[in-house]
Amino acid sequence: MPRYRLLIEYDGTGLVGWQRQDNGPSVQQALEDAITRFAGHPAQLVAAGRTDAGVHALGQVAHVDLARDWPADTVRDATNFHVKPASIAVLAAARAAPDFHARFSATGRRYLYRIVNRRAQAALERHRAWHVTLPLDAAAMHEAAQLLVGRHDFASFRAAQCQAASPVKTLDRLDVTRHGEVVEIAAAARSFLHHQVRNMVGTLKLVGEGRWAVPEVRDVLAARNRAAAGPTAPADGLYLVEVRYDGATSDHDAHEPGDEEIE
Amino acid sequence: MPRYRLLIEYDGTGLVGWQRQDNGPSVQQALEDAITRFAGHPAQLVAAGRTDAGVHALGQVAHVDLARDWPADTVRDATNFHVKPASIAVLAAARAAPDFHARFSATGRRYLYRIVNRRAQAALERHRAWHVTLPLDAAAMHEAAQLLVGRHDFASFRAAQCQAASPVKTLDRLDVTRHGEVVEIAAAARSFLHHQVRNMVGTLKLVGEGRWAVPEVRDVLAARNRAAAGPTAPADGLYLVEVRYDGATSDHDAHEPGDEEIE
Repeated sequence: MPRYRLLIEYDGTGLVGWQRQDNGPSVQQALEDAITRFAGHPAQLVAAGRTDAGVHALGQVAHVDLARDWPADTVRDATNFHVKPASIAVLAAARAAPDFHARFSATGRRYLYRIVNRRAQAALERHRAWHVTLPLDAAAMHEAAQLLVGRHDFASFRAAQCQAASPVKTLDRLDVTRHGEVVEIAAAARSFLHHQVRNMVGTLKLVGEGRWAVPEVRDVLAARNRAAAGPTAPADGLYLVEVRYDGATSDHDAHEPGDEEIE
Repeated sequence: MPRYRLLIEYDGTGLVGWQRQDNGPSVQQALEDAITRFAGHPAQLVAAGRTDAGVHALGQVAHVDLARDWPADTVRDATNFHVKPASIAVLAAARAAPDFHARFSATGRRYLYRIVNRRAQAALERHRAWHVTLPLDAAAMHEAAQLLVGRHDFASFRAAQCQAASPVKTLDRLDVTRHGEVVEIAAAARSFLHHQVRNMVGTLKLVGEGRWAVPEVRDVLAARNRAAAGPTAPADGLYLVEVRYDGATSDHDAHEPGDEEIE
């Protein structure tokens, strides 16, 4: 069975997330159904990041095994044809090595979190950003974010239902920048704990509003207790931007898994 | 009755357009209902640009007369409170002179048209851009666009149902730029004919695909016949970006009205 690697974009609004579930439409189900329709047999997709309900993707990666040796462009076009009108698109498809695994072979993931920071609610960005009305100090948020970069026990930013064996992760980058009324938080790591990005954003937002001082984030991290951190930021603002497989990421512990929890 | 000027953003998806209609929800109706709920009396909004079904706005302007002298920020916040959960937001409200007229006082309008130019359909940009699969030559489109800039009879780009007294308009700017897989067309004029922007975009797209040579656009303009131009580009990609009231626009004929047809 030839293996294919798919690069996928989706609008997570109204979806229950990546993973197939009984309670609503998922990205996985929509794509598997589309592939089954053209390939003529059941297909199972494995994704690099199992994004949660409402989370978007600009560059999700998944692999799938097909019975026939289809041209990669046919896999892309036929899947896109059958997945419409869902807000899901296969940007690229390529043949992959039989041992390529979208989730376990991944060596880096990048997420973007977008906040619309203004008095009026988001209209065009509704479901695509977090609306925060109090003015955010993006420079203070960035300073606080640097306290989280590096290899740490991220238990304070880990969802209760997280299945990861260890809360120790290496955060490569956490940059906060302002572009007009939009505040963007860019996060990069080999992998993240369940809701880690959204929990870090929820904490940085409190710093941005001036409710917490920058150095307090160090205490939040040291507490290794979810209750010490801020609330989970809403799914609407989160985008899985890129998954890397080049092994070129920085100083990760060799024991840190390529696997990742639900974001 | 004090007059207020509102700056409005909306996602036109699923709406019948700016103007109140019997066949579905409109921006005007949603805002008038919201204002009536807090002001306690019927209110009538007049907009600078009566955008068509599916067209978006980043900076629509409208005026409304209220019975009481409300603080402008209250008008903004109360309207936003009552208009939810529609994808409509009042970005700013200000007191206006009694003779300020959102439509007739306008001296300049800017529209943006967005094309997602790639093989795969738009997922995150669905309903927010036109999906064009053939590779577009944005430089050729820009060159052709310059043939339309200036004072011309735009009858070739005018919808059959256009009510404007004259098809002569002055197009101040029509710039085509590529940003990765997105092609943007920025149009500026005192006012536009019915569907003028979308009809110009539909023609430039044919140039971008190489089906028409750049100089042919001159012939299209000279024909003064709608049948000579390309098809109307879909509403999804069109955004009303800004309306100006400063009278500082370039060399318009003094007789050119500030009024504008439906875009």
